Amino acid sequence: MRLLEQRIISDGIVGENDVLKVGTFLNQQIDTELMSRCADEFCRLYADSGVTKILTVEASGIAIAAITALKLGVQLVFAKKSVTSNVSGSVYAADAYSYTHNHNNTLIVPCAYLDKSDKVLIIDDFLARGEAVNALADICDRASAAIAGVGILIEKAYQGGGASIRKRGIRLESLARIASLDIKNGIVFED
Amino acid sequence: MRLLEQRIISDGIVGENDVLKVGTFLNQQIDTELMSRCADEFCRLYADSGVTKILTVEASGIAIAAITALKLGVQLVFAKKSVTSNVSGSVYAADAYSYTHNHNNTLIVPCAYLDKSDKVLIIDDFLARGEAVNALADICDRASAAIAGVGILIEKAYQGGGASIRKRGIRLESLARIASLDIKNGIVFED
Repeated sequence: MRLLEQRIISDGIVGENDVLKVGTFLNQQIDTELMSRCADEFCRLYADSGVTKILTVEASGIAIAAITALKLGVQLVFAKKSVTSNVSGSVYAADAYSYTHNHNNTLIVPCAYLDKSDKVLIIDDFLARGEAVNALADICDRASAAIAGVGILIEKAYQGGGASIRKRGIRLESLARIASLDIKNGIVFED
Repeated sequence: MRLLEQRIISDGIVGENDVLKVGTFLNQQIDTELMSRCADEFCRLYADSGVTKILTVEASGIAIAAITALKLGVQLVFAKKSVTSNVSGSVYAADAYSYTHNHNNTLIVPCAYLDKSDKVLIIDDFLARGEAVNALADICDRASAAIAGVGILIEKAYQGGGASIRKRGIRLESLARIASLDIKNGIVFED
């Protein structure tokens, strides 16, 4: 999606150790007009997929997931990274190692929020090694919910997460696919 | 707001220790159509307030804040509860004790995302003792940003948070104001 790629080029900051900072418009300060255009694209891609629910993980995926769910006319569920006193009853859980935060998260969704009648669109802001998205897909499998596919804003295509998702037979749509990223050469997108 | 009150009555669960669980429609599984109607109400209430930015705190406030920001045509910023490798540069920080999670959070917003040109609408899902909202207001004060007001989905009006905000001279609009809450008598709203 050209609009998103252009914004990543103009406002993204490439840091040490393969870090791409997009906090000014995408994952802490959020340009809701840009997110609306991205949500429109997810809706176009998954228009005929019978999506009943959108699933994401806290926290930075929630904004794009909420706007996409609103436009698709479905409910949003987000996985929590820890059990809180607000979570009760049986839960589905799956582990996801966070390379960004350098520790393991156990993603948790109450069983009451997903079941075999659901067809789930998984949405997240970033896809790198695919730990979080694969954990969300594991949760769908445990709930016997069908997976319509995955929608990602920015995929680091060289890090293997996308391949691991497609290998499971899950459709993956990423709006910006980065082929390489370093301070010297900047950001190069896949063709 | 009658629609939200009715939904709280029909789907909210009153638990021990003054807990109101609304996870099925408001803060983990999210009814985006209901959130859209709530966002419309925030837009109506703050239509003439010159809002330039919406501020919330991760995670359960992000969905309603994102939808409201989209409808108002402004950017969304959310405060993080810890510094991550994605946060760089100077930050504004303010402490907020979480009675739900029983520990202290330091809310953090990069200085680059708020300044004296901003007029901020603070949005959150719950207001009880007001710790989080007062910390967000402290962050606005540190950034010399004006505060247009606060928009809350559910206020536990008997817990003092609302009074503490109004005492600062900040406008507060809560869409559902709970006067009392217990297992025996259920949920009673303010008139």
